[in-house]
Amino acid sequence: MRQAGRSLPEYKAVRGTGHILEAISQPERVVEITLQPIRRYGVDAAILYSDIMVPLHAIGFGVDIVPGIGPVIAEPFTGKADLDRIRDLDAEGDTPYVIEAVRHLVEELTIPLIGFAGAPFTLAAYLIEGGPSKNYAKTKSLMYSQPELWHQLADRLADLSLASLRSQILAGASAVQLFDSWAGALSIADYEHFVMPASRKIFEGLKDLEVPRLHFGVVTGELLTSMSEAGADVVGVDWRVSLGDARKRVGDKAIQGNLDPAVCLAPYEVVQQHADRVFAEAATSPNGHIFNLGHGVLPETNPDTLARLVDYVHAHPIGNS
Amino acid sequence: MRQAGRSLPEYKAVRGTGHILEAISQPERVVEITLQPIRRYGVDAAILYSDIMVPLHAIGFGVDIVPGIGPVIAEPFTGKADLDRIRDLDAEGDTPYVIEAVRHLVEELTIPLIGFAGAPFTLAAYLIEGGPSKNYAKTKSLMYSQPELWHQLADRLADLSLASLRSQILAGASAVQLFDSWAGALSIADYEHFVMPASRKIFEGLKDLEVPRLHFGVVTGELLTSMSEAGADVVGVDWRVSLGDARKRVGDKAIQGNLDPAVCLAPYEVVQQHADRVFAEAATSPNGHIFNLGHGVLPETNPDTLARLVDYVHAHPIGNS
Repeated sequence: MRQAGRSLPEYKAVRGTGHILEAISQPERVVEITLQPIRRYGVDAAILYSDIMVPLHAIGFGVDIVPGIGPVIAEPFTGKADLDRIRDLDAEGDTPYVIEAVRHLVEELTIPLIGFAGAPFTLAAYLIEGGPSKNYAKTKSLMYSQPELWHQLADRLADLSLASLRSQILAGASAVQLFDSWAGALSIADYEHFVMPASRKIFEGLKDLEVPRLHFGVVTGELLTSMSEAGADVVGVDWRVSLGDARKRVGDKAIQGNLDPAVCLAPYEVVQQHADRVFAEAATSPNGHIFNLGHGVLPETNPDTLARLVDYVHAHPIGNS
Repeated sequence: MRQAGRSLPEYKAVRGTGHILEAISQPERVVEITLQPIRRYGVDAAILYSDIMVPLHAIGFGVDIVPGIGPVIAEPFTGKADLDRIRDLDAEGDTPYVIEAVRHLVEELTIPLIGFAGAPFTLAAYLIEGGPSKNYAKTKSLMYSQPELWHQLADRLADLSLASLRSQILAGASAVQLFDSWAGALSIADYEHFVMPASRKIFEGLKDLEVPRLHFGVVTGELLTSMSEAGADVVGVDWRVSLGDARKRVGDKAIQGNLDPAVCLAPYEVVQQHADRVFAEAATSPNGHIFNLGHGVLPETNPDTLARLVDYVHAHPIGNS
């Protein structure tokens, strides 16, 4: 469960009120924060405490993460000259704290650690919009108006994320997840033309390391076939698409999802009913299903509900397989 | 094209800096603002200048529309006692300005006028969240925790929208559109259980008036079958879903859409390519297709692009049928 820690009091205590990029750069704190939800919930994998903007921040693009808003770019990407601001990532030199945190975690953990990075479209959207966006008007405008520049940008961001993911795997991560959080804003044709080649470059570039590659998005029901073809082993789905429909669209890939995080705000009986629905739908998936939420944990979620949900999933024949 | 007027200089001149709810309550200004995009673009239907929150504002629920934010509710809906704040709409007495504007427009226009209202889920989400929301956590929480109260609220909002739509049709509107702008946040099962009955009540309640009933949403690819079954004659689709897939899901209903409004920010050749794609996909729709954007016009759109696009659609055999 992504962002499972942020509703925990022990997280708030360790995290304090300092800057998140500061916290992420301190391996000891990263280790502690990554372990907190594992201790609480006993989930089957840990996901590194970090942010998709870390590599861009590390190479000095000028990224801030503002509480209540998200990533904000002081000088957004507007044209060809800005390509030079995205240099190659030297993971050991630029993000030693990530590598160190992964190494420590792998020593501590008895379950797999999942590393992650942002997918080219989502990273590009942040760089071009300058922050979160409702309709990605600037991003799409650049994509349609300057397709060559767009492809250069996406390709460069692919190299950046690939370098980061490789370094996390080489440090010991057992699996990696590529987050294309905003890809759901695109039509299938635009996704395939403008996004898929760059995302594919990342998945291809990880092949030799032989770890499971997960691909995450929301509002991506229509894109599931294309996202699968980009090369992931596991494709995440949100609650908008039924697992039966998702299965038809992902071909021979495994599925991750799809409980609506808002369900976890309901009384526990309701949570259980929804989990039962996931079990029933997942039973139709011959290539495996990872029980998960369809998006990050909502901050207002009661930790007890999540603890009971994890126990319930573990007690189920599917959740226990 | 919804919100086609808002990027026009003549709109900004008439609209001024006053409050939008004030502008909507002045029939002469509503007539002028509704006619502006018709004069500019020569589109095939007019859509009334109004807002989905007008009936709730008119019965005194305490609705404001804040520039740059959207509808804001001073005292959000939190429990059973708030049901009493949603009394029946007496359209003649509560919204005489809407009826007067419709009457004037029907006299002036030689093309159909489309009236509209908000669908119960979207209205309820505004009332419960108190404004726009990213994840509808409060709305879903109430829905899951107090299903009976939710159904009462949705039913009451259905009555309100039904009364408003009937009054617009009786004043001369040739068609009506029900906006469920946020329904795409729901799973199919939740939509069918919590939303469909109330939306269906509206479509059923309009049947005797024998005008085309359109149903609008975005991010509703997975819900198209259910939204069709709620009773609309025409179902809107955004660019995320291909028209071929949409056709399979809507059964015998007509389709409206699905050009991405962001495409209209591109150079005109690109706009034309995307329009050609819509034509090609629409040719597979045996029950009719209304060429339209998949969402409202973006404010930064160049009016000349829209004018050329309308001409291009009219010159095409499908657009001209």
